[in-house]
Amino acid sequence: MPETAADFHTAREQATALVRAQLDDILRLPQGPERRLVEAMRYAALDGGKGFRPFLCLATSDLFGVAQSQAVRVAAALECVHCYSLAHDDLPAMDDDDLRRGRPSLHKAYDEATAILAGDALLTLAFEILADPATHAEAEVRLALVANLARAAGMDGMVGGQTLDILSPDLSLDVAELTRLQGLKTGALIGFSVAAGAVLGAADEPQTAALKDYAQDLGLAFQIADDVLDVTQSSATLGKTAGKDKADGKATFVSLLGLEGAQQEAEKRAAQAEAHLSPFGETADPLRQAAQFVIQRKN
Amino acid sequence: MPETAADFHTAREQATALVRAQLDDILRLPQGPERRLVEAMRYAALDGGKGFRPFLCLATSDLFGVAQSQAVRVAAALECVHCYSLAHDDLPAMDDDDLRRGRPSLHKAYDEATAILAGDALLTLAFEILADPATHAEAEVRLALVANLARAAGMDGMVGGQTLDILSPDLSLDVAELTRLQGLKTGALIGFSVAAGAVLGAADEPQTAALKDYAQDLGLAFQIADDVLDVTQSSATLGKTAGKDKADGKATFVSLLGLEGAQQEAEKRAAQAEAHLSPFGETADPLRQAAQFVIQRKN
Repeated sequence: MPETAADFHTAREQATALVRAQLDDILRLPQGPERRLVEAMRYAALDGGKGFRPFLCLATSDLFGVAQSQAVRVAAALECVHCYSLAHDDLPAMDDDDLRRGRPSLHKAYDEATAILAGDALLTLAFEILADPATHAEAEVRLALVANLARAAGMDGMVGGQTLDILSPDLSLDVAELTRLQGLKTGALIGFSVAAGAVLGAADEPQTAALKDYAQDLGLAFQIADDVLDVTQSSATLGKTAGKDKADGKATFVSLLGLEGAQQEAEKRAAQAEAHLSPFGETADPLRQAAQFVIQRKN
Repeated sequence: MPETAADFHTAREQATALVRAQLDDILRLPQGPERRLVEAMRYAALDGGKGFRPFLCLATSDLFGVAQSQAVRVAAALECVHCYSLAHDDLPAMDDDDLRRGRPSLHKAYDEATAILAGDALLTLAFEILADPATHAEAEVRLALVANLARAAGMDGMVGGQTLDILSPDLSLDVAELTRLQGLKTGALIGFSVAAGAVLGAADEPQTAALKDYAQDLGLAFQIADDVLDVTQSSATLGKTAGKDKADGKATFVSLLGLEGAQQEAEKRAAQAEAHLSPFGETADPLRQAAQFVIQRKN
Protein backbone atom coordinates (compact mmCIF):
# COMPACT_ATOMS: atom_id res chain seq x y z
CA MET A 1 0.00 0.00 0.00
CA PRO A 2 1.32 3.45 -0.86
CA GLU A 3 0.36 4.81 2.58
CA THR A 4 2.42 2.11 4.26
CA ALA A 5 5.47 2.84 2.13
CA ALA A 6 5.05 6.54 2.83
CA ASP A 7 4.76 5.87 6.58
CA PHE A 8 7.94 3.84 6.47
CA HIS A 9 9.77 6.47 4.48
CA THR A 10 8.75 9.15 6.97
CA ALA A 11 9.70 7.02 9.98
CA ARG A 12 13.07 6.22 8.46
CA GLU A 13 13.77 9.88 7.75
CA GLN A 14 12.79 10.73 11.32
CA ALA A 15 15.14 8.07 12.69
CA THR A 16 17.95 9.42 10.53
CA ALA A 17 17.32 12.98 11.68
CA LEU A 18 17.22 11.98 15.36
CA VAL A 19 20.48 10.05 15.14
CA ARG A 20 22.07 12.84 13.18
CA ALA A 21 21.11 15.38 15.85
CA GLN A 22 22.45 13.07 18.57
CA LEU A 23 25.79 12.60 16.82
CA ASP A 24 25.96 16.29 15.95
CA ASP A 25 25.72 16.96 19.68
CA ILE A 26 28.30 14.31 20.64
CA LEU A 27 30.80 15.10 17.88
CA ARG A 28 31.46 18.74 18.78
CA LEU A 29 34.28 20.21 16.74
CA PRO A 30 37.27 21.02 18.97
CA GLN A 31 39.80 23.77 18.39
CA GLY A 32 43.34 22.76 17.52
CA PRO A 33 44.72 20.40 14.91
CA GLU A 34 42.66 17.39 16.12
CA ARG A 35 39.67 19.22 14.65
CA ARG A 36 40.50 17.39 11.43
CA LEU A 37 39.82 14.03 13.10
CA VAL A 38 36.38 15.06 14.32
CA GLU A 39 35.54 16.63 10.95
CA ALA A 40 36.37 13.30 9.32
CA MET A 41 34.24 11.42 11.87
CA ARG A 42 31.35 13.76 11.12
CA TYR A 43 31.83 13.34 7.37
CA ALA A 44 31.63 9.57 7.82
CA ALA A 45 28.79 9.37 10.32
CA LEU A 46 26.54 12.40 9.85
CA ASP A 47 25.86 12.62 6.14
CA GLY A 48 24.01 10.35 3.78
CA GLY A 49 23.10 6.82 4.68
CA LYS A 50 19.68 5.24 4.47
CA GLY A 51 19.19 5.21 8.22
CA PHE A 52 18.10 1.61 8.00
CA ARG A 53 19.82 0.40 11.19
CA PRO A 54 18.75 3.41 13.28
CA PHE A 55 15.19 2.85 12.05
CA LEU A 56 15.30 -0.81 13.10
CA CYS A 57 16.57 0.11 16.57
CA LEU A 58 13.92 2.76 17.09
CA ALA A 59 11.08 0.67 15.67
CA THR A 60 11.99 -2.34 17.82
CA SER A 61 12.30 -0.13 20.88
CA ASP A 62 8.82 1.20 20.13
CA LEU A 63 7.42 -2.33 20.50
CA PHE A 64 8.27 -2.14 24.18
CA GLY A 65 7.57 1.52 24.87
CA VAL A 66 11.25 2.39 25.34
CA ALA A 67 11.95 6.10 25.80
CA GLN A 68 13.02 7.55 22.47
CA SER A 69 15.97 9.34 24.09
CA GLN A 70 17.46 5.96 25.05
CA ALA A 71 16.80 4.29 21.71
CA VAL A 72 18.34 7.22 19.84
CA ARG A 73 21.59 6.93 21.79
CA VAL A 74 21.85 3.24 20.96
CA ALA A 75 21.00 3.98 17.33
CA ALA A 76 23.77 6.61 17.32
CA ALA A 77 26.24 4.04 18.65
CA LEU A 78 25.37 1.53 15.99
CA GLU A 79 25.55 4.16 13.28
CA CYS A 80 29.12 4.88 14.52
CA VAL A 81 29.99 1.21 14.09
CA HIS A 82 28.30 0.93 10.71
CA CYS A 83 30.05 4.05 9.40
CA TYR A 84 33.46 3.05 10.78
CA SER A 85 33.12 -0.27 8.96
CA LEU A 86 32.32 1.50 5.68
CA ALA A 87 35.29 3.87 6.11
CA HIS A 88 37.71 0.98 6.67
CA ASP A 89 36.12 -1.24 3.99
CA ASP A 90 36.56 1.50 1.38
CA LEU A 91 40.31 1.84 2.03
CA PRO A 92 42.68 1.03 -0.86
CA ALA A 93 44.03 -2.01 1.02
CA MET A 94 40.48 -3.34 1.43
CA ASP A 95 37.73 -2.83 -1.19
CA ASP A 96 39.46 0.27 -2.65
CA ASP A 97 36.26 2.19 -3.33
CA ASP A 98 36.36 5.91 -4.08
CA LEU A 99 32.61 6.49 -3.98
CA ARG A 100 30.27 6.17 -1.01
CA ARG A 101 26.79 7.63 -0.60
CA GLY A 102 27.29 9.60 -3.81
CA ARG A 103 30.37 11.39 -2.48
CA PRO A 104 34.10 10.70 -2.28
CA SER A 105 34.68 7.99 0.30
CA LEU A 106 36.38 9.09 3.51
CA HIS A 107 39.97 8.44 2.48
CA LYS A 108 39.41 10.35 -0.78
CA ALA A 109 37.80 13.33 1.00
CA TYR A 110 40.60 13.36 3.61
CA ASP A 111 43.47 10.89 3.40
CA GLU A 112 44.10 7.26 4.28
CA ALA A 113 45.62 7.90 7.71
CA THR A 114 42.70 10.10 8.72
CA ALA A 115 40.21 7.50 7.44
CA ILE A 116 41.86 4.77 9.51
CA LEU A 117 41.95 6.94 12.63
CA ALA A 118 38.42 8.32 12.21
CA GLY A 119 37.16 4.75 11.85
CA ASP A 120 39.03 3.69 14.99
CA ALA A 121 37.63 6.67 16.87
CA LEU A 122 34.04 6.01 15.73
CA LEU A 123 34.23 2.38 16.87
CA THR A 124 35.60 3.46 20.25
CA LEU A 125 32.96 6.19 20.56
CA ALA A 126 30.18 3.64 20.11
CA PHE A 127 31.19 1.93 23.34
CA GLU A 128 31.56 5.24 25.15
CA ILE A 129 28.01 6.18 24.14
CA LEU A 130 26.56 2.85 25.29
CA ALA A 131 28.40 2.93 28.65
CA ASP A 132 27.10 6.41 29.47
CA PRO A 133 24.30 6.56 32.08
CA ALA A 134 22.26 8.70 29.68
CA THR A 135 21.71 5.56 27.59
CA HIS A 136 19.91 3.68 30.36
CA ALA A 137 19.63 4.00 34.13
CA GLU A 138 20.45 0.34 34.79
CA ALA A 139 24.10 -0.70 34.57
CA GLU A 140 23.13 -4.26 33.60
CA VAL A 141 21.25 -2.98 30.55
CA ARG A 142 24.14 -0.80 29.40
CA LEU A 143 26.54 -3.71 29.87
CA ALA A 144 24.32 -6.03 27.85
CA LEU A 145 24.37 -3.48 25.04
CA VAL A 146 28.18 -3.18 25.21
CA ALA A 147 28.63 -6.96 25.22
CA ASN A 148 26.13 -7.52 22.39
CA LEU A 149 27.65 -4.81 20.23
CA ALA A 150 31.19 -6.11 20.81
CA ARG A 151 30.14 -9.61 19.78
CA ALA A 152 28.23 -8.37 16.73
CA ALA A 153 31.03 -6.10 15.53
CA GLY A 154 34.12 -8.19 16.30
CA MET A 155 36.00 -11.28 15.16
CA ASP A 156 32.95 -13.54 15.49
CA GLY A 157 30.70 -11.01 13.75
CA MET A 158 31.23 -8.12 11.35
CA VAL A 159 35.06 -8.11 11.23
CA GLY A 160 35.09 -11.90 10.82
CA GLY A 161 32.67 -11.53 7.90
CA GLN A 162 34.73 -8.78 6.34
CA THR A 163 37.78 -11.04 6.56
CA LEU A 164 35.90 -13.76 4.69
CA ASP A 165 34.75 -11.19 2.15
CA ILE A 166 38.31 -10.04 1.46
CA LEU A 167 39.41 -13.66 1.04
CA SER A 168 36.32 -14.71 -0.93
CA PRO A 169 37.74 -14.40 -4.47
CA ASP A 170 39.95 -17.38 -3.57
CA LEU A 171 37.29 -19.38 -1.71
CA SER A 172 34.77 -20.54 -4.38
CA LEU A 173 31.89 -20.09 -1.96
CA ASP A 174 28.59 -21.96 -2.33
CA VAL A 175 25.24 -20.49 -1.27
CA ALA A 176 25.50 -21.82 2.30
CA GLU A 177 28.99 -20.36 2.74
CA LEU A 178 28.01 -17.03 1.22
CA THR A 179 24.96 -16.97 3.50
CA ARG A 180 27.23 -17.49 6.49
CA LEU A 181 29.66 -14.79 5.28
CA GLN A 182 26.89 -12.24 4.85
CA GLY A 183 25.31 -13.27 8.16
CA LEU A 184 28.55 -12.14 9.78
CA LYS A 185 29.43 -9.17 7.56
CA THR A 186 26.07 -7.39 7.48
CA GLY A 187 23.70 -9.67 9.41
CA ALA A 188 25.39 -9.34 12.80
CA LEU A 189 25.01 -5.56 13.01
CA ILE A 190 21.44 -5.67 11.67
CA GLY A 191 20.86 -8.30 14.35
CA PHE A 192 22.21 -5.93 16.99
CA SER A 193 20.01 -3.09 15.69
CA VAL A 194 16.96 -5.23 16.45
CA ALA A 195 18.31 -6.96 19.58
CA ALA A 196 19.19 -3.62 21.14
CA GLY A 197 15.52 -2.62 21.19
CA ALA A 198 14.72 -5.91 22.92
CA VAL A 199 17.46 -5.31 25.51
CA LEU A 200 16.30 -1.74 26.19
CA GLY A 201 12.71 -2.95 26.42
CA ALA A 202 13.46 -5.93 28.69
CA ALA A 203 11.82 -8.27 26.18
CA ASP A 204 11.09 -11.79 27.42
CA GLU A 205 12.79 -14.82 25.88
CA PRO A 206 10.17 -15.72 23.24
CA GLN A 207 10.01 -12.10 22.10
CA THR A 208 13.81 -11.90 21.92
CA ALA A 209 13.97 -15.15 19.94
CA ALA A 210 11.26 -14.01 17.49
CA LEU A 211 13.08 -10.74 16.88
CA LYS A 212 16.37 -12.57 16.38
CA ASP A 213 14.74 -14.77 13.71
CA TYR A 214 13.21 -11.68 12.11
CA ALA A 215 16.58 -9.91 12.01
CA GLN A 216 18.32 -12.93 10.51
CA ASP A 217 15.91 -13.22 7.57
CA LEU A 218 15.76 -9.46 7.19
CA GLY A 219 19.54 -9.15 7.05
CA LEU A 220 19.78 -11.83 4.43
CA ALA A 221 16.99 -10.30 2.34
CA PHE A 222 18.84 -6.98 2.63
CA GLN A 223 22.11 -8.45 1.38
CA ILE A 224 20.56 -10.47 -1.45
CA ALA A 225 18.72 -7.33 -2.60
CA ASP A 226 22.06 -5.49 -2.41
CA ASP A 227 23.58 -8.01 -4.79
CA VAL A 228 20.61 -7.62 -7.15
CA LEU A 229 20.88 -3.82 -7.09
CA ASP A 230 24.62 -4.09 -7.73
CA VAL A 231 23.91 -5.53 -11.20
CA THR A 232 20.62 -3.76 -12.04
CA GLN A 233 21.40 -0.17 -10.98
CA SER A 234 23.99 2.40 -11.97
CA SER A 235 26.71 3.78 -9.71
CA ALA A 236 24.90 7.12 -9.81
CA THR A 237 21.70 5.58 -8.42
CA LEU A 238 23.53 3.47 -5.84
CA GLY A 239 25.88 6.24 -4.70
CA LYS A 240 28.67 3.66 -4.72
CA THR A 241 30.53 1.79 -7.43
CA ALA A 242 28.18 -0.68 -9.14
CA GLY A 243 29.32 -4.13 -10.32
CA LYS A 244 32.32 -4.10 -8.00
CA ASP A 245 31.91 -7.58 -6.49
CA LYS A 246 31.84 -9.21 -9.91
CA ALA A 247 34.88 -7.20 -11.02
CA ASP A 248 36.69 -8.32 -7.84
CA GLY A 249 35.83 -11.96 -8.52
CA LYS A 250 33.64 -12.27 -5.41
CA ALA A 251 30.71 -14.66 -5.22
CA THR A 252 27.33 -12.93 -4.89
CA PHE A 253 23.81 -14.27 -4.58
CA VAL A 254 23.27 -13.22 -8.18
CA SER A 255 26.36 -15.08 -9.41
CA LEU A 256 25.26 -18.20 -7.52
CA LEU A 257 21.47 -18.09 -7.97
CA GLY A 258 21.03 -15.99 -11.11
CA LEU A 259 19.19 -12.67 -11.12
CA GLU A 260 15.69 -14.15 -10.97
CA GLY A 261 16.69 -16.77 -8.40
CA ALA A 262 18.23 -14.09 -6.18
CA GLN A 263 15.14 -11.87 -6.45
CA GLN A 264 12.92 -14.81 -5.46
CA GLU A 265 15.18 -15.69 -2.55
CA ALA A 266 15.11 -12.11 -1.29
CA GLU A 267 11.31 -12.08 -1.46
CA LYS A 268 11.12 -15.41 0.35
CA ARG A 269 13.41 -14.17 3.13
CA ALA A 270 11.48 -10.92 3.49
CA ALA A 271 8.23 -12.89 3.81
CA GLN A 272 9.81 -15.16 6.42
CA ALA A 273 11.05 -12.10 8.31
CA GLU A 274 7.50 -10.73 8.44
CA ALA A 275 6.13 -14.08 9.58
CA HIS A 276 8.38 -14.06 12.63
CA LEU A 277 6.65 -10.89 13.81
CA SER A 278 3.24 -12.51 14.35
CA PRO A 279 3.56 -12.52 18.19
CA PHE A 280 3.65 -8.72 18.14
CA GLY A 281 0.50 -8.09 16.09
CA GLU A 282 -0.05 -4.73 14.43
CA THR A 283 2.44 -2.91 16.65
CA ALA A 284 5.16 -4.51 14.54
CA ASP A 285 3.87 -3.05 11.25
CA PRO A 286 6.84 -0.67 10.94
CA LEU A 287 9.18 -3.67 11.08
CA ARG A 288 7.07 -5.40 8.41
CA GLN A 289 7.37 -2.30 6.25
CA ALA A 290 11.13 -2.49 6.73
CA ALA A 291 11.10 -5.99 5.25
CA GLN A 292 9.19 -4.71 2.22
CA PHE A 293 11.51 -1.74 1.89
CA VAL A 294 14.52 -4.04 1.80
CA ILE A 295 13.38 -5.82 -1.36
CA GLN A 296 11.69 -2.86 -3.07
CA ARG A 297 14.38 -0.19 -2.65
CA LYS A 298 16.24 1.16 -5.66
CA ASN A 299 19.54 1.94 -3.93
CA MET B 1 69.55 -1.49 43.91
CA PRO B 2 70.13 -4.59 41.79
CA GLU B 3 67.62 -6.63 43.83
CA THR B 4 64.94 -4.07 43.13
CA ALA B 5 65.59 -4.09 39.41
CA ALA B 6 65.58 -7.89 39.43
CA ASP B 7 62.26 -7.92 41.35
CA PHE B 8 60.75 -5.58 38.83
CA HIS B 9 62.04 -7.58 35.90
CA THR B 10 60.55 -10.77 37.36
CA ALA B 11 57.22 -9.12 38.13
CA ARG B 12 57.01 -7.69 34.63
CA GLU B 13 57.76 -11.06 33.06
CA GLN B 14 55.08 -12.64 35.27
CA ALA B 15 52.56 -10.03 34.18
CA THR B 16 53.42 -10.65 30.54
CA ALA B 17 53.06 -14.41 30.95
CA LEU B 18 49.71 -14.08 32.73
CA VAL B 19 48.29 -11.80 30.06
CA ARG B 20 49.67 -14.00 27.32
CA ALA B 21 47.98 -17.07 28.84
CA GLN B 22 44.71 -15.14 29.16
CA LEU B 23 44.77 -13.99 25.54
CA ASP B 24 45.89 -17.43 24.37
CA ASP B 25 42.73 -18.77 26.00
CA ILE B 26 40.47 -16.07 24.55
CA LEU B 27 41.95 -16.08 21.04
CA ARG B 28 41.27 -19.73 20.19
CA LEU B 29 42.03 -20.47 16.55
CA PRO B 30 38.85 -21.31 14.63
CA GLN B 31 38.58 -23.62 11.66
CA GLY B 32 37.72 -22.08 8.31
CA PRO B 33 39.19 -19.14 6.43
CA GLU B 34 38.65 -16.67 9.29
CA ARG B 35 41.47 -18.50 11.06
CA ARG B 36 43.79 -16.06 9.32
CA LEU B 37 42.21 -13.14 11.20
CA VAL B 38 42.72 -14.77 14.59
CA GLU B 39 46.26 -15.79 13.69
CA ALA B 40 47.00 -12.16 12.88
CA MET B 41 45.41 -11.01 16.17
CA ARG B 42 47.60 -13.50 18.03
CA TYR B 43 50.69 -12.35 16.14
CA ALA B 44 49.98 -8.77 17.16
CA ALA B 45 48.93 -9.35 20.77
CA LEU B 46 50.66 -12.48 22.05
CA ASP B 47 54.29 -12.13 21.09
CA GLY B 48 56.95 -9.71 22.22
CA GLY B 49 56.17 -6.48 23.98
CA LYS B 50 57.62 -5.28 27.24
CA GLY B 51 54.47 -5.99 29.23
CA PHE B 52 54.73 -2.55 30.76
CA ARG B 53 51.01 -1.74 30.73
CA PRO B 54 49.95 -5.18 32.03
CA PHE B 55 52.51 -4.80 34.82
CA LEU B 56 51.09 -1.40 35.78
CA CYS B 57 47.55 -2.76 35.89
CA LEU B 58 48.53 -5.75 38.02
CA ALA B 59 50.79 -3.77 40.36
CA THR B 60 48.14 -1.10 40.93
CA SER B 61 45.50 -3.77 41.51
CA ASP B 62 47.83 -5.33 44.11
CA LEU B 63 47.71 -2.10 46.13
CA PHE B 64 44.07 -2.84 46.83
CA GLY B 65 44.18 -6.63 47.10
CA VAL B 66 42.26 -7.14 43.86
CA ALA B 67 41.98 -10.79 42.76
CA GLN B 68 44.65 -11.50 40.18
CA SER B 69 42.13 -13.21 37.87
CA GLN B 70 40.25 -9.90 37.55
CA ALA B 71 43.34 -7.74 37.05
CA VAL B 72 44.67 -10.10 34.39
CA ARG B 73 41.49 -9.81 32.34
CA VAL B 74 41.70 -6.02 32.41
CA ALA B 75 45.40 -6.20 31.56
CA ALA B 76 44.52 -8.44 28.60
CA ALA B 77 41.97 -5.90 27.39
CA LEU B 78 44.44 -3.05 27.54
CA GLU B 79 47.09 -5.15 25.79
CA CYS B 80 44.53 -5.66 22.99
CA VAL B 81 44.12 -1.90 22.67
CA HIS B 82 47.85 -1.22 22.85
CA CYS B 83 48.62 -3.83 20.20
CA TYR B 84 45.80 -2.72 17.89
CA SER B 85 47.20 0.82 18.04
CA LEU B 86 50.68 -0.43 17.08
CA ALA B 87 49.28 -2.48 14.19
CA HIS B 88 47.40 0.51 12.78
CA ASP B 89 50.25 2.97 13.49
CA ASP B 90 52.69 0.81 11.55
CA LEU B 91 50.54 0.78 8.40
CA PRO B 92 52.01 2.36 5.24
CA ALA B 93 49.41 5.14 5.33
CA MET B 94 50.43 5.99 8.91
CA ASP B 95 54.03 5.63 10.21
CA ASP B 96 54.93 3.04 7.52
CA ASP B 97 57.12 0.92 9.76
CA ASP B 98 58.17 -2.57 8.70
CA LEU B 99 59.78 -3.57 12.00
CA ARG B 100 58.09 -4.05 15.39
CA ARG B 101 59.42 -5.95 18.39
CA GLY B 102 62.27 -7.26 16.28
CA ARG B 103 59.95 -8.89 13.76
CA PRO B 104 58.07 -7.82 10.62
CA SER B 105 55.21 -5.56 11.65
CA LEU B 106 51.73 -7.02 11.24
CA HIS B 107 51.02 -5.78 7.71
CA LYS B 108 54.38 -7.15 6.55
CA ALA B 109 53.83 -10.54 8.18
CA TYR B 110 50.28 -10.71 6.73
CA ASP B 111 48.95 -7.94 4.52
CA GLU B 112 47.48 -4.48 4.96
CA ALA B 113 43.84 -5.55 4.89
CA THR B 114 44.44 -8.20 7.54
CA ALA B 115 46.37 -5.71 9.69
CA ILE B 116 43.51 -3.22 9.54
CA LEU B 117 40.91 -5.90 10.36
CA ALA B 118 42.96 -7.57 13.10
CA GLY B 119 43.42 -4.16 14.71
CA ASP B 120 39.69 -3.46 14.50
CA ALA B 121 38.93 -6.86 16.02
CA LEU B 122 41.43 -6.41 18.88
CA LEU B 123 39.93 -3.05 19.79
CA THR B 124 36.44 -4.56 19.77
CA LEU B 125 37.59 -7.58 21.77
CA ALA B 126 38.92 -5.33 24.53
CA PHE B 127 35.39 -4.11 25.26
CA GLU B 128 33.99 -7.62 25.07
CA ILE B 129 36.52 -8.76 27.68
CA LEU B 130 35.73 -5.88 30.03
CA ALA B 131 31.96 -6.35 29.75
CA ASP B 132 32.17 -10.05 30.64
CA PRO B 133 31.05 -10.97 34.18
CA ALA B 134 34.35 -12.87 34.64
CA THR B 135 36.08 -9.48 34.82
CA HIS B 136 34.18 -8.34 37.92
CA ALA B 137 30.97 -9.37 39.64
CA GLU B 138 29.61 -5.81 39.84
CA ALA B 139 28.12 -4.35 36.67
CA GLU B 140 29.00 -0.81 37.78
CA VAL B 141 32.68 -1.72 37.98
CA ARG B 142 32.72 -3.31 34.52
CA LEU B 143 30.92 -0.30 33.10
CA ALA B 144 33.42 2.10 34.67
CA LEU B 145 36.20 0.11 33.03
CA VAL B 146 34.45 0.21 29.64
CA ALA B 147 33.82 3.96 29.90
CA ASN B 148 37.35 4.73 31.08
CA LEU B 149 38.94 2.64 28.35
CA ALA B 150 36.76 4.19 25.65
CA ARG B 151 37.74 7.70 26.78
CA ALA B 152 41.44 6.81 27.03
CA ALA B 153 41.55 5.09 23.63
CA GLY B 154 39.32 7.36 21.55
CA MET B 155 39.17 10.78 19.95
CA ASP B 156 39.94 12.61 23.21
CA GLY B 157 42.75 10.18 24.05
CA MET B 158 44.99 7.86 22.10
CA VAL B 159 43.44 8.30 18.63
CA GLY B 160 43.38 12.07 19.10
CA GLY B 161 47.07 11.95 20.01
CA GLN B 162 47.89 9.77 17.04
CA THR B 163 46.11 12.29 14.80
CA LEU B 164 48.29 15.08 16.19
CA ASP B 165 51.35 12.88 15.73
CA ILE B 166 50.57 12.28 12.06
CA LEU B 167 50.06 16.00 11.54
CA SER B 168 53.04 17.04 13.69
CA PRO B 169 55.63 17.52 10.90
CA ASP B 170 53.54 20.53 9.82
CA LEU B 171 52.77 21.85 13.32
CA SER B 172 56.13 23.18 14.69
CA LEU B 173 55.24 22.01 18.19
CA ASP B 174 56.78 23.53 21.30
CA VAL B 175 57.45 21.53 24.48
CA ALA B 176 54.01 22.22 25.97
CA GLU B 177 52.28 21.11 22.76
CA LEU B 178 54.43 18.01 22.42
CA THR B 179 53.71 17.19 26.07
CA ARG B 180 50.00 17.44 25.33
CA LEU B 181 50.34 15.28 22.20
CA GLN B 182 52.21 12.55 24.06
CA GLY B 183 49.82 12.78 27.00
CA LEU B 184 47.09 11.76 24.56
CA LYS B 185 49.03 9.36 22.34
CA THR B 186 50.75 7.25 25.00
CA GLY B 187 49.79 8.86 28.32
CA ALA B 188 46.08 8.13 28.13
CA LEU B 189 46.46 4.34 27.90
CA ILE B 190 49.18 4.29 30.55
CA GLY B 191 46.75 6.32 32.63
CA PHE B 192 44.05 3.70 32.08
CA SER B 193 46.49 0.90 33.02
CA VAL B 194 46.88 2.51 36.45
CA ALA B 195 43.32 3.81 36.81
CA ALA B 196 41.91 0.35 36.08
CA GLY B 197 43.57 -1.03 39.21
CA ALA B 198 42.01 1.78 41.21
CA VAL B 199 38.57 1.05 39.71
CA LEU B 200 38.86 -2.69 40.40
CA GLY B 201 40.05 -1.95 43.92
CA ALA B 202 37.37 0.63 44.72
CA ALA B 203 40.05 3.20 45.56
CA ASP B 204 38.89 6.34 47.34
CA GLU B 205 39.16 9.76 45.73
CA PRO B 206 42.55 10.83 47.16
CA GLN B 207 44.06 7.47 46.19
CA THR B 208 42.59 7.73 42.68
CA ALA B 209 43.94 11.27 42.31
CA ALA B 210 47.43 10.29 43.53
CA LEU B 211 47.56 7.39 41.07
CA LYS B 212 46.38 9.65 38.25
CA ASP B 213 49.21 12.08 39.00
CA TYR B 214 51.65 9.17 39.16
CA ALA B 215 50.52 7.83 35.79
CA GLN B 216 50.75 11.24 34.18
CA ASP B 217 54.39 11.79 35.18
CA LEU B 218 55.23 8.15 34.49
CA GLY B 219 53.75 8.30 30.99
CA LEU B 220 55.68 11.42 30.18
CA ALA B 221 58.95 9.97 31.55
CA PHE B 222 58.26 6.89 29.42
CA GLN B 223 57.80 8.92 26.24
CA ILE B 224 60.78 11.22 26.82
CA ALA B 225 62.95 8.16 27.46
CA ASP B 226 61.56 6.69 24.22
CA ASP B 227 62.74 9.77 22.34
CA VAL B 228 66.17 9.46 23.97
CA LEU B 229 66.44 5.77 23.06
CA ASP B 230 65.37 6.58 19.52
CA VAL B 231 68.62 8.52 18.99
CA THR B 232 70.99 6.57 21.27
CA GLN B 233 70.11 2.96 20.37
CA SER B 234 70.17 0.91 17.18
CA SER B 235 67.14 -0.56 15.42
CA ALA B 236 68.40 -4.00 16.43
CA THR B 237 68.36 -3.09 20.11
CA LEU B 238 65.02 -1.29 19.90
CA GLY B 239 63.31 -3.94 17.78
CA LYS B 240 61.82 -1.11 15.74
CA THR B 241 63.22 1.43 13.30
CA ALA B 242 65.49 3.87 15.14
CA GLY B 243 65.67 7.57 14.25
CA LYS B 244 62.31 7.48 12.51
CA ASP B 245 60.73 10.56 14.11
CA LYS B 246 63.63 12.77 13.05
CA ALA B 247 63.55 11.33 9.52
CA ASP B 248 59.80 12.06 9.39
CA GLY B 249 60.36 15.65 10.54
CA LYS B 250 58.49 15.17 13.82
CA ALA B 251 59.31 17.14 16.93
CA THR B 252 60.66 15.02 19.79
CA PHE B 253 61.73 15.88 23.32
CA VAL B 254 65.32 15.43 22.14
CA SER B 255 64.89 17.81 19.20
CA LEU B 256 63.31 20.40 21.51
CA LEU B 257 65.36 19.96 24.71
CA GLY B 258 68.60 18.42 23.46
CA LEU B 259 69.78 14.97 24.51
CA GLU B 260 70.96 15.97 27.96
CA GLY B 261 67.96 18.19 28.58
CA ALA B 262 65.61 15.36 27.63
CA GLN B 263 67.42 12.90 29.90
CA GLN B 264 67.15 15.34 32.81
CA GLU B 265 63.47 15.94 32.13
CA ALA B 266 62.78 12.18 32.06
CA GLU B 267 64.57 11.77 35.40
CA LYS B 268 62.65 14.68 36.89
CA ARG B 269 59.32 13.23 35.76
CA ALA B 270 60.20 9.77 37.06
CA ALA B 271 61.09 11.27 40.45
CA GLN B 272 57.82 13.20 40.50
CA ALA B 273 55.94 10.02 39.63
CA GLU B 274 57.51 8.26 42.61
CA ALA B 275 56.72 11.17 44.89
CA HIS B 276 53.00 10.88 44.12
CA LEU B 277 53.05 7.37 45.60
CA SER B 278 53.85 8.48 49.15
CA PRO B 279 50.27 7.84 50.45
CA PHE B 280 50.72 4.13 49.66
CA GLY B 281 53.99 3.53 51.56
CA GLU B 282 56.09 0.49 50.77
CA THR B 283 53.23 -1.40 49.13
CA ALA B 284 53.77 0.85 46.10
CA ASP B 285 57.44 -0.14 45.66
CA PRO B 286 56.69 -2.09 42.45
CA LEU B 287 55.23 1.07 40.94
CA ARG B 288 58.34 3.00 42.05
CA GLN B 289 60.49 0.38 40.34
CA ALA B 290 58.42 0.90 37.21
CA ALA B 291 59.37 4.58 37.24
CA GLN B 292 63.04 3.66 37.50
CA PHE B 293 62.67 1.07 34.75
CA VAL B 294 61.20 3.66 32.43
CA ILE B 295 64.31 5.85 32.48
CA GLN B 296 66.91 3.06 32.75
CA ARG B 297 65.68 0.68 30.04
CA LYS B 298 67.73 0.12 26.92
CA ASN B 299 64.85 -0.60 24.54
